[in-house]
Amino acid sequence: MTAYEKLESRFRRHSIVQGAMAVLHWDSAVMMPLGGASARSDQLAELALVCHEILTAPDFQELLNAAEGEVEKLDEWQDTNLAEMRRRWLHANAVPAELVRRLSEASSACEIAWRDARAQDDFEAVRPHLELIVDLTRQSAQAKSEHLGCSPYEALLDEYDPGSRIADIEPLFNELAEFLESFIGEVVESQGRHPRPVTPRGRFSVEAQRRLGENLMRRLGFDFERGRLDTSHHPFTGGIPEDLRLTTRYDEDDFTSGLMAVLHETGHALYERGLPAKWRHQPVGSSRGMSMHESQSLIIEMQASRSDAFIRYLTPLLRDAFAGDGEEWQTDNLIRVYRQVSPSLIRVDADEVTYPMHVIMRFHLERALIAGDLTVADLPGAWREGMRRALGVEPGDDRDGCMQDIHWFSGGFGYFPTYTLGAIAAAQLFRAAQRAVPDVLSGLEIGDFRPLLSWLRENVHDLASRYTPQDILTRTTGRSFDIEVFKTHLRDRYLD
Amino acid sequence: MTAYEKLESRFRRHSIVQGAMAVLHWDSAVMMPLGGASARSDQLAELALVCHEILTAPDFQELLNAAEGEVEKLDEWQDTNLAEMRRRWLHANAVPAELVRRLSEASSACEIAWRDARAQDDFEAVRPHLELIVDLTRQSAQAKSEHLGCSPYEALLDEYDPGSRIADIEPLFNELAEFLESFIGEVVESQGRHPRPVTPRGRFSVEAQRRLGENLMRRLGFDFERGRLDTSHHPFTGGIPEDLRLTTRYDEDDFTSGLMAVLHETGHALYERGLPAKWRHQPVGSSRGMSMHESQSLIIEMQASRSDAFIRYLTPLLRDAFAGDGEEWQTDNLIRVYRQVSPSLIRVDADEVTYPMHVIMRFHLERALIAGDLTVADLPGAWREGMRRALGVEPGDDRDGCMQDIHWFSGGFGYFPTYTLGAIAAAQLFRAAQRAVPDVLSGLEIGDFRPLLSWLRENVHDLASRYTPQDILTRTTGRSFDIEVFKTHLRDRYLD
Repeated sequence: MTAYEKLESRFRRHSIVQGAMAVLHWDSAVMMPLGGASARSDQLAELALVCHEILTAPDFQELLNAAEGEVEKLDEWQDTNLAEMRRRWLHANAVPAELVRRLSEASSACEIAWRDARAQDDFEAVRPHLELIVDLTRQSAQAKSEHLGCSPYEALLDEYDPGSRIADIEPLFNELAEFLESFIGEVVESQGRHPRPVTPRGRFSVEAQRRLGENLMRRLGFDFERGRLDTSHHPFTGGIPEDLRLTTRYDEDDFTSGLMAVLHETGHALYERGLPAKWRHQPVGSSRGMSMHESQSLIIEMQASRSDAFIRYLTPLLRDAFAGDGEEWQTDNLIRVYRQVSPSLIRVDADEVTYPMHVIMRFHLERALIAGDLTVADLPGAWREGMRRALGVEPGDDRDGCMQDIHWFSGGFGYFPTYTLGAIAAAQLFRAAQRAVPDVLSGLEIGDFRPLLSWLRENVHDLASRYTPQDILTRTTGRSFDIEVFKTHLRDRYLD
Repeated sequence: MTAYEKLESRFRRHSIVQGAMAVLHWDSAVMMPLGGASARSDQLAELALVCHEILTAPDFQELLNAAEGEVEKLDEWQDTNLAEMRRRWLHANAVPAELVRRLSEASSACEIAWRDARAQDDFEAVRPHLELIVDLTRQSAQAKSEHLGCSPYEALLDEYDPGSRIADIEPLFNELAEFLESFIGEVVESQGRHPRPVTPRGRFSVEAQRRLGENLMRRLGFDFERGRLDTSHHPFTGGIPEDLRLTTRYDEDDFTSGLMAVLHETGHALYERGLPAKWRHQPVGSSRGMSMHESQSLIIEMQASRSDAFIRYLTPLLRDAFAGDGEEWQTDNLIRVYRQVSPSLIRVDADEVTYPMHVIMRFHLERALIAGDLTVADLPGAWREGMRRALGVEPGDDRDGCMQDIHWFSGGFGYFPTYTLGAIAAAQLFRAAQRAVPDVLSGLEIGDFRPLLSWLRENVHDLASRYTPQDILTRTTGRSFDIEVFKTHLRDRYLD
């Protein structure tokens, strides 16, 4: 075996163990009884260690050097694969094992403390935990930044979005925030001139919701021989490409959000399922970071499923599923329901228009925390101030303020920007798909996602990590990340 | 860390990864969509390799030698633990890695071929696969026998029942077969003099069966904060002591067998749950082989739950659960239903009296296969002949003959004896429990398993692998494995 082939076989092992972990994660959230939590966390820690040991084997660097000395023998995919291998090796080896261990322990402890502190609305109870996490994360980011040749915050971004840089994100976010500042008001005003949306009322059984969700998943191209739909506290897509485990949650008084969560997660799942089998288990064969991933869920949920075309198709299905009858079950009203814009406190409940403001504020706050410009003690105040400026609303407590998201309290910094980068990319990709394939919109009218899915397979899924997100967008749309299309989309959808 | 402590920490890792595998196994049987099978088998193979690598690390033998050189520093539990470590190391290292790999591949291939061959009743289709397995198993058993200092077949027994020897089993089985040869006829004759049992008829919803099963599990002391009950093709107990995953299967026309399966599996689960937390993850802390395990399921299912006392308690619960009404819902009839004896072809459907004959025949056949005294080609004929002599029935095809059990076709030789050793031990332990704790039987009258469970905890579960099964029995009953109590139990229960 060549050095490159040896590396491929190690990453294969790595990926297979990661796949086992993904199933165990899903089980934790969906099946596991409470008393199993501690043993499960031992299992996941042990398997994480197995993965870490694969990437920190003493001869790994030698193999990378040897393979990089023979790049002329590699094709383009292999070449990109090798570069991704180097990047993953850097992430695993840049940080001393002791720091990795301490950060992992601190994250587990903080997450537990956060659940209680949030329930009690007691930020002080979780503050010391979060301070320790910020401190250790800064050390880890510093160590990685030296090896990756970027700033500490960028080293954190890089874990979720390889190659992501502040210089790319900041101008986009500034421009978008400036646009939204006035746009949100215009939309709210415009919606005030129309009939108020009426959310359908009734008793919507879990069973009926689940059946409808599964039907729509099939329409979208989801293969139930290779996955399941279950219930969890927060919707997510877990498992592996051959066996995708989706979840949603059901509210028997309101089907609207659980159903959209199913469509959102199906977008994630179709991306994973569409990745090239040939490169399965190799870094180049995995999804291209969380921004692209979010673009795939949002192109299904926001771009396609909230389009007039699809909601027209959906209307009779909803009436059938829930024996709905009356004005509120008309397409016009359902469109208004699915497009209500209203500045609010909670990110996960936010609409398409105000959502980026939640993200942009978190982007600034987490950068400041990592840079040392903001202390954890000052976070609650900075949050309230940020929300007031961003959306003109201010949380009355920290539960609906800086304690609402799990990310930081479980050690996740640098993730938030991917939500909005994904939304921007989704708009660009959806327009490109419509231009390239005239059937995309007319397909949605009859619940046929195949034209859209074929285009996504060819232009996004098949490419896996062969290109950067910027290159994927440029190949298909002629531009890198660009908020113009997103702005146009918002204007077209939300203003008269 | 001392050498002994280093070994403890390696076995801890080994056990945690095994625990992860147990959850993945459960998921395969209960949750996984068909399309995930191949990826799952990659995951399990990879984790098996991780476990194998732990036990075959180059310095492992040195650590064992060093620890064995310092036994004076160890207490009795640690001493037994060290001996078990050596035994596990021997099993892992005695067989060349290449042979392990070939046997594992051959087993997977044979199991797949067996499913088809069984469905088609085509033994010839699976014959070459089974020949390869027997061949490789003989090589593996030969290699292990040299290191363990026993015969090749005993090396196979040793995997399921450490220290199990033919000289212990054969006299028991001979004596039991001789007893049953006439006893079965006597029972059948005796039952002919009584009213025929009438199996309750009706539509027994899965939901009602599940609810009753869960109620009885609670009565038995099962903690649903630390486990679940689900459905699978064959009932089993999976998971880990902190998170036990039980399964059964439901027949909506007949609740009797699914319900007993729940009680049987709960017996297994209570054993796992009762193992000493102090020795969790150490060899000495695990269950003492499959015979003791089966004794724990059978003491619940056969000894306790089919007693007059418990069936009296169960009768109104059954009537309530299934709205049962009429003669067939009387205790007397239900006792007869749960104690029907009838020589038949299929082991898993066999009653308590004829079951050992199925096992004893398999014990002789698999010994002959491993010794080279019986060829795979001659197996179908030997099976028919064996069944005719053992129970006076002869299968009309191989599907209900030598292809009925998965064991050999998935590479499992040496497992069958544990079923009957477990039944013998269960009878001995149940009598000892009744003598030591007068409340055992009167507890069952009111569905209170606590007196029995407390006794089992103290006399079996708490001891884990500290003693051999022979020693556990001798401590509690004054005798090692001894069929007299089992014979008495059968006579008392099945003859007038």
